[in-house]
Amino acid sequence: MEFSLDRATALLARTPASLSALLAGLPEEWTMSDEGPGTWSPYQVLGHLTHIEESDWMDRTLIILQDGGPHPFEPVDREAGFSRFAGWSMTDLLERFREVRASNLEQLDEAVSEANLTRVGLHPTFGEVTLDQLLAAWVVHDLNHLDQIAKTMAKQYAAAIGPWREFLPIVDAP
Amino acid sequence: MEFSLDRATALLARTPASLSALLAGLPEEWTMSDEGPGTWSPYQVLGHLTHIEESDWMDRTLIILQDGGPHPFEPVDREAGFSRFAGWSMTDLLERFREVRASNLEQLDEAVSEANLTRVGLHPTFGEVTLDQLLAAWVVHDLNHLDQIAKTMAKQYAAAIGPWREFLPIVDAP
Repeated sequence: MEFSLDRATALLARTPASLSALLAGLPEEWTMSDEGPGTWSPYQVLGHLTHIEESDWMDRTLIILQDGGPHPFEPVDREAGFSRFAGWSMTDLLERFREVRASNLEQLDEAVSEANLTRVGLHPTFGEVTLDQLLAAWVVHDLNHLDQIAKTMAKQYAAAIGPWREFLPIVDAP
Repeated sequence: MEFSLDRATALLARTPASLSALLAGLPEEWTMSDEGPGTWSPYQVLGHLTHIEESDWMDRTLIILQDGGPHPFEPVDREAGFSRFAGWSMTDLLERFREVRASNLEQLDEAVSEANLTRVGLHPTFGEVTLDQLLAAWVVHDLNHLDQIAKTMAKQYAAAIGPWREFLPIVDAP
């Protein structure tokens, strides 16, 4: 599927409500459990998503749109959200994610049109990337973490499902 | 995590709204695209989920609870939802899923208590399974398909994300 601004923002606009419907009020055994050392709980994923939402995607979009580029992006600290939101409840995190996403989509709507999707910025690892690649990565990043949350919760029941483990490979997915 | 009826139903109760928030009104390029031959689009996944919701989980629960068991379960036709809901809109499918899930959870609340979680039914492939294994599998089945929907949509942007493919393995996940 080719990138389109309308299709990308349609998905970005839906992620916060989908995550809220899934996670708000859910028992902490689901939301605070991870997959073992070096993995994240759904609560930590929300901290990461919200921090990146505050500091990364829209920031990089505006850097690309600055005159005289291509300009470099700041590197991302994937775990900075853990300290930024230490002590926050899941409900407050979900609300903060919703709020920053809505504000970012408003800004995006004002700042970006199909005409500047080929403009370029400098990614710390990849070098030159286009605005449409950045915006597509924003969408896939949402889906990647939705997938991760589903998988991490499924694994809590790896033993509980007994013989169904054979038909439900998600509990053994890497 | 050990199985608990409260934790399982807390998750089961949230899936329909989470899927609705993600998929209702989303452009069809997202919801009708699959991953290639033999794979399902998010729309087809919803047909499957809704059919199984109508015919499988609660039905098997009630079979387990019948006196004089263990009694055998009917086999499941994983693709029967495709013809059952042929021509339905995504919105109507989401609404039907919500409605049947709500009704099933009401029935479950009336019929099942912690005391009968160890009762047994006969699965066509596995043989004897306990009620708590069936209910845990119901939860993981939801998460498995949420994961599948996220992955199928992410793959539509496998090319669009350019070099981010290295950081977003979901687009190349099996």
